[in-house]
Amino acid sequence: MKAKVIVTLKNGVLDPQGKAIEGALSSLGFEGVNQVRQGKLFEIDLATSDADEARRDLSAMCDRLLANTVIESYRIELV
Amino acid sequence: MKAKVIVTLKNGVLDPQGKAIEGALSSLGFEGVNQVRQGKLFEIDLATSDADEARRDLSAMCDRLLANTVIESYRIELV
Repeated sequence: MKAKVIVTLKNGVLDPQGKAIEGALSSLGFEGVNQVRQGKLFEIDLATSDADEARRDLSAMCDRLLANTVIESYRIELV
Repeated sequence: MKAKVIVTLKNGVLDPQGKAIEGALSSLGFEGVNQVRQGKLFEIDLATSDADEARRDLSAMCDRLLANTVIESYRIELV
């Protein structure tokens, strides 16, 4: 079973990488960009085909490794 | 108008970061993880409300800055 895990900074957390991209886009002549925020995407291929088990495992992986839950939130999508 | 841009490595391109995450998950005791591949997500807030214009601008941003189209592919989602 394949899954996507999307990890994004929580609202209110400063995103210097996003700010740098905003600056770079502006230097390249792209106008009308109000805000950029960068997140991470993990495409994970799991051996299990049980959706509940996959979701439980993925939550644990996020809490323990993939996301820093103090400043990041995550979303799990089973494909 | 808000948009999401998802940048992922093309198939066949080696992903050392993904491999490292696989190793780390396995060390943490997570079994049954066949493969992990990491990608990037950009949440972009554009001033325009014209979907065609937004899509055109975002494509240009990907080609010029956000993605290395030699090894990465990108997907644009207007929200």
